Amino acid sequence: MKNNQFALLPVDSSQVLAELKLTKFVDEHVLAAATIPSAFQLLLEKTFPEVEDQSALNTKLGTLLATPKCDAFTWITTAKLVTADVFYRIALQLLEFLPEVDFDVENPLSSMDKMQLPTVRTNQFDRETLYEAWYLLLNTHTKNGKTLLDRLATRGYFQPLMYETDTPRPLFFNGKAQPVFDTRNLLHEVVYIETDFDTDNDGQRDLVKAEIIRPIDTDLQVPVLFTASPYNQGTNDEHGAKLTHKVDVPLTRKKPAEVEYASIEHHANLEPTVAAREISAETEDATETFAREQSYTLNDYFLARGYAVIYSSGIGSKDSQGLQTTGDEYEVASAKAVVEWVHGDRVAFTNKVDNIAIKASWSNGKVAMTGRSYLGTLATAVATTGVAGLETIVSEAAISSWYDYYRSNGLVIAPGGYPGEDADVLAEETFSRRKQPGDFYQVKDRYQAYLDQMGIDQDRETGSYNEFWDARNYLKDVANIKADVIMVHGLNDWNVKPEQVNNLWHALDAAKVNKKIILHQGEHIYINAMRSIDFTDMMNLWFAHKLYGLDNHAPELLPNVLIQDNVTPETWHAEQDWDNIADKHVFHLNSGQLGDEPGTGKVSFMDQVGEAAFKGYTTDVDAWEHLIKAPKSALSTNRALFQTVPLERAEIIDGRVIVKLRVKSSVNFGMLSCQLVDYGEAKRFNIKPTPLGVKLDSGFQWREDMLNEFTLASKATPFKMISKGHINLQNRTNAWQSDDLRADQFVDIELALQPTYYHLPANHQLGLVVYATDFGMTVRGNQDITYTIDESASQIDVPFMA
Amino acid sequence: MKNNQFALLPVDSSQVLAELKLTKFVDEHVLAAATIPSAFQLLLEKTFPEVEDQSALNTKLGTLLATPKCDAFTWITTAKLVTADVFYRIALQLLEFLPEVDFDVENPLSSMDKMQLPTVRTNQFDRETLYEAWYLLLNTHTKNGKTLLDRLATRGYFQPLMYETDTPRPLFFNGKAQPVFDTRNLLHEVVYIETDFDTDNDGQRDLVKAEIIRPIDTDLQVPVLFTASPYNQGTNDEHGAKLTHKVDVPLTRKKPAEVEYASIEHHANLEPTVAAREISAETEDATETFAREQSYTLNDYFLARGYAVIYSSGIGSKDSQGLQTTGDEYEVASAKAVVEWVHGDRVAFTNKVDNIAIKASWSNGKVAMTGRSYLGTLATAVATTGVAGLETIVSEAAISSWYDYYRSNGLVIAPGGYPGEDADVLAEETFSRRKQPGDFYQVKDRYQAYLDQMGIDQDRETGSYNEFWDARNYLKDVANIKADVIMVHGLNDWNVKPEQVNNLWHALDAAKVNKKIILHQGEHIYINAMRSIDFTDMMNLWFAHKLYGLDNHAPELLPNVLIQDNVTPETWHAEQDWDNIADKHVFHLNSGQLGDEPGTGKVSFMDQVGEAAFKGYTTDVDAWEHLIKAPKSALSTNRALFQTVPLERAEIIDGRVIVKLRVKSSVNFGMLSCQLVDYGEAKRFNIKPTPLGVKLDSGFQWREDMLNEFTLASKATPFKMISKGHINLQNRTNAWQSDDLRADQFVDIELALQPTYYHLPANHQLGLVVYATDFGMTVRGNQDITYTIDESASQIDVPFMA
Repeated sequence: MKNNQFALLPVDSSQVLAELKLTKFVDEHVLAAATIPSAFQLLLEKTFPEVEDQSALNTKLGTLLATPKCDAFTWITTAKLVTADVFYRIALQLLEFLPEVDFDVENPLSSMDKMQLPTVRTNQFDRETLYEAWYLLLNTHTKNGKTLLDRLATRGYFQPLMYETDTPRPLFFNGKAQPVFDTRNLLHEVVYIETDFDTDNDGQRDLVKAEIIRPIDTDLQVPVLFTASPYNQGTNDEHGAKLTHKVDVPLTRKKPAEVEYASIEHHANLEPTVAAREISAETEDATETFAREQSYTLNDYFLARGYAVIYSSGIGSKDSQGLQTTGDEYEVASAKAVVEWVHGDRVAFTNKVDNIAIKASWSNGKVAMTGRSYLGTLATAVATTGVAGLETIVSEAAISSWYDYYRSNGLVIAPGGYPGEDADVLAEETFSRRKQPGDFYQVKDRYQAYLDQMGIDQDRETGSYNEFWDARNYLKDVANIKADVIMVHGLNDWNVKPEQVNNLWHALDAAKVNKKIILHQGEHIYINAMRSIDFTDMMNLWFAHKLYGLDNHAPELLPNVLIQDNVTPETWHAEQDWDNIADKHVFHLNSGQLGDEPGTGKVSFMDQVGEAAFKGYTTDVDAWEHLIKAPKSALSTNRALFQTVPLERAEIIDGRVIVKLRVKSSVNFGMLSCQLVDYGEAKRFNIKPTPLGVKLDSGFQWREDMLNEFTLASKATPFKMISKGHINLQNRTNAWQSDDLRADQFVDIELALQPTYYHLPANHQLGLVVYATDFGMTVRGNQDITYTIDESASQIDVPFMA
Repeated sequence: MKNNQFALLPVDSSQVLAELKLTKFVDEHVLAAATIPSAFQLLLEKTFPEVEDQSALNTKLGTLLATPKCDAFTWITTAKLVTADVFYRIALQLLEFLPEVDFDVENPLSSMDKMQLPTVRTNQFDRETLYEAWYLLLNTHTKNGKTLLDRLATRGYFQPLMYETDTPRPLFFNGKAQPVFDTRNLLHEVVYIETDFDTDNDGQRDLVKAEIIRPIDTDLQVPVLFTASPYNQGTNDEHGAKLTHKVDVPLTRKKPAEVEYASIEHHANLEPTVAAREISAETEDATETFAREQSYTLNDYFLARGYAVIYSSGIGSKDSQGLQTTGDEYEVASAKAVVEWVHGDRVAFTNKVDNIAIKASWSNGKVAMTGRSYLGTLATAVATTGVAGLETIVSEAAISSWYDYYRSNGLVIAPGGYPGEDADVLAEETFSRRKQPGDFYQVKDRYQAYLDQMGIDQDRETGSYNEFWDARNYLKDVANIKADVIMVHGLNDWNVKPEQVNNLWHALDAAKVNKKIILHQGEHIYINAMRSIDFTDMMNLWFAHKLYGLDNHAPELLPNVLIQDNVTPETWHAEQDWDNIADKHVFHLNSGQLGDEPGTGKVSFMDQVGEAAFKGYTTDVDAWEHLIKAPKSALSTNRALFQTVPLERAEIIDGRVIVKLRVKSSVNFGMLSCQLVDYGEAKRFNIKPTPLGVKLDSGFQWREDMLNEFTLASKATPFKMISKGHINLQNRTNAWQSDDLRADQFVDIELALQPTYYHLPANHQLGLVVYATDFGMTVRGNQDITYTIDESASQIDVPFMA
């Protein structure tokens, strides 16, 4: 186990003492303790909140080893001083580590160091260093996730303090809010927020349902974590599956045409077409409740710490009104409306009929948006509106432009794992008004007409960028962002691909906001239950700063760029920037090699495979993925492979590899796919984090998550795909213009592969595989097309970190 | 979806009305309603406990379709009568089914029938039939698990009733307790129960920690669900792994010896050797609490319904005293002690030091034991003591004799998936006093000596039954059982194998108690979240009867034998008995066939495989399992295969297939393994139940489970193992005597395979595969041994159901 804590705030000894007093660790008894050992004893007793009588406390102290042969209770009866050796032997046990299994009972300090657990070193603790060490220990992560103080809270430490008048609420400790809010008595309220528009054309502005969970305390104004999730009111999986498009269709030639961007630019228009409802009355009291929302465990954690949480599914969802427009200005505005209501700038009603207005008077008006995938996408999108009250977003695995999600460089490209999905399929999936047949029946015809039109506008025929996609490109408006942005993305996310966050990362330079990014080795996952990174603590520090205005140095303390290593588990690199390498290393394609000198040959491969193989690959994409196997694979004739010699030293690829090819197709249309591959026998990370079998509490008798961590697979593999990219040979200029292409005409293409940060070990070979049909992502026409690469003008530019 | 509800209690119309009044569905407004439609409207409004004002209720009614083209709110404004068509169209939606996806909106009644959802049929409801239909609907399972009333409770239905004085507590509805207890304010208490013995030899009787969770109501005496789980205080996985025995060791010859059972019989001795503690004081108030126990979701469900729950890990576990004796009379007595304390027959203390006694005055003295695997094993074991207060046990996937868990017929046989595990390994795993280094240090030497002795006594050398195993055979004492017994077991459980429950099932004939058995198609799993069976309801009915004394006909209503079909999903067979076929069908082994006539040939196979293959199979047991592939497999020379012709009609194998073989070994020792196989291309059940993506609540804002169901695999498979068995050729007489065997000497063996209930489809072939080394279960010596079967005296006796 290697501990990594980026949210550990260094504080001086006066603050240590003040915070230990605030949290009742240092009380009158500790202050009055005659000796350091007896002060230590009193502190230790506080780590057993389950027991109250002295005998039982003594018994509990007896369960800890103070020296290799003496328990802590016995030791304390004769101890004259507290050494670091004794302190950290006991500390390791409090941190849930075990002798033999986790640490060397003879050498606790070296075990602390080895696991990167912070220590205060001294031969003999005095009162000040004892407090400092105790404070640091409370803020240190245990073996089983979260800080020791979090674990103590989970075991009831804050229960007696919860309703005491001298307990501040929120209570900040080391710059982070602590669980002193009673999660067993949270308020659950529903309100209906009025938008400015009427997407379902029923003559009334669309109302959007919001589910609010907040502390019962009425004397306190709290900030909001808001997750906009079109999935939260249920999904229509059967209908979505039915609408899913066929992908075993041929690629076709596009009619060449010059297209100016201005001609396809979308101009958002949210002008109201119907009048707002007239407010009939005002109230403080919601009249609708709910039992259980579909929650994000990160939000759950903050419900115990003085934050309200709101979930809303937006227009077209169950209990709301309107249509599902899949990411355009209307859906974004319906999420933005929630922020506006919290901030006091928009009206909400207690129900959909009586026009009784209700204000978020319990809120301090400050909002953070959270969530992954579509949820994080909406966070990003709402941020680009510059809405007041939105102080920050935590945008995880988020889409920054929907074109890049369902298309790429003039091709229909499926999100990994979802061939045939498209914007209309997602609309059908998330139009949860279907779940209420009486309501759905009213809107059915209008909905179907809208959905049919979406099917046309998204244009699967050409795969080109058009006004439909421009309406769903948030990168255009990044300069409007006023909220600070935390981005989280998996470097192995082939659903929402890494360029989505990369484009946002770069575009944010135009906005005058703080930006931070965390890149992990996962696919399309959350990281708030991952043991090796204190993501939840970081967010706690961040939200305290952004939403409660606490001066805790969060912007400076949290690294701007944090990247998980792909070779060594539990290793995170703090960097200054990502994808900012100016001088890229050029490898020329040369006779199957990636080398220093340009080649002179021509390399051909065909697209078509045998009929049986084709059928097999369409149902088993994993089998097709052996395409990249070297030196030979069952698909050797369907690809061109180029490899470096084994690398003399390890390299970091930081950013986007550019593939420049001179290439021709045997017909007058065509597409290319490229994969960058790490060749070398190695035990690599398992694709998914390994569950560690440990429940992770969000508070005292509150909701739970399961701790996980990336581990090395038990077996070595010979290669791993690093990155990929796809391009239509008729989209050499850009994604919206169809260039001409003639059969057997060499053309030059330039393709930026998905950005990465990849640790390529020494002795491995870097490889490029060029092919056409990507069974997991492109259309699959199994067409009789041959592609030929002219090596003399083909190269890759690789951003090796210096 | 096919609904199966065995706990649906038929009641007359007066009870319908009384219970509807009790639960406030029928109140003064409903009684006063002028028309049937308006009574129906009021009932429907009660299904939306989230809203309070009439406008919102109207909106909610508008979300339901009453006719294919009219919502329920609009319909009700003009309705003159309520037809079954309208009632069940709405009912289906209340049950969370959707038009198009789940039911035909034009024909709701036929959809109800198709899904086996019960109905009251009438052309036009009058008040009495409306109430009956409403009552039945409340008791009907929804698409997403549990009854509609349970789902309403989850959404808050009982919240306003919870603290009303006219709400009975417990509240029984249709014979089952409802969630009217506040799970947000349960009491959590720890007590230390004194046993009669001192296994760790520290001069004091072993104290056993018990964790109690119970309703806060002090005016009520409640029964207890008690789960004895040695795992609950944590496990020592690393130490367990370290002690795991090598299985790549040769089988060896045992010295022949006649052994009488009497010479190896164990005589339990629990005579106290040290004095009991002197009680210093008595109290009503526990002084130790806990935040979160390791819970069984079935118990969670009953915490909302007026039951207390106790978990105890027994001697040798963290916070308790004593050693871990793995299933002998001491461990059993330490679990029995908990029942005795609840029943008022034993002393418990508030802590381990002060000798302050505390009584379970909040209890009604009645206990049910629950839990799976080791937990269910202890339930069975405690029941065999005949302890007062234990009214029933629900013994799931439980061991009835530990010999049958780690051994079989004179062989070391691993539980499936755990080669090398043994009683001592399990002791090491569960001796959680290791988790408290200060405590462990005190007992370390005594513990190690005990563990070493266990390693000797379990005798992996011979694999024979001896006194060690006799001390852990609960079948000997089944006649003492006074508690009614519910058994649950997976017919595909190769960890705790089906003979464990089969032996208990038969042995229970000697006890004068009710016995019920549920056999499912799972492996070693719980079934309380499985959609197609109302297991939780059954237990609710059962516990109400056994622990609250409710006259609800549970013993008669619940089937004695309930078996899940292995061919058709969601199908359960209620039978009178299991494994009670007197006339078995004989198939003779004859030239590779299982036929009507005895064969005349000799069939040989060898045990040894090539070195590379051996290494491969030891690390990949799945690959070895292709041994049974027909007609050929990579291991064809390592087996003898016999198959019937394709069966003309489907058959049910009900019970134990007996394999009778005349066989010789090429050396003077040997073992045989047999598998009974279903040969035939078919889509079979997935091995694990499929998660349905639906949260299953235990009550209102209380803990959750995930709904699941067995589904058919997407691909057909050519065969499936039905059952298996193993025997040492030197244990032809019984498991404790070593018979002589000479090289090349034919001997007759009779081997009962694991019992089953297997639906063998028509056109499939039944097969028998005979071999020696079982890579998943036996030792693996890879020895040069040839076995030969004499077909002339070899047959299998198959219990086909008539």
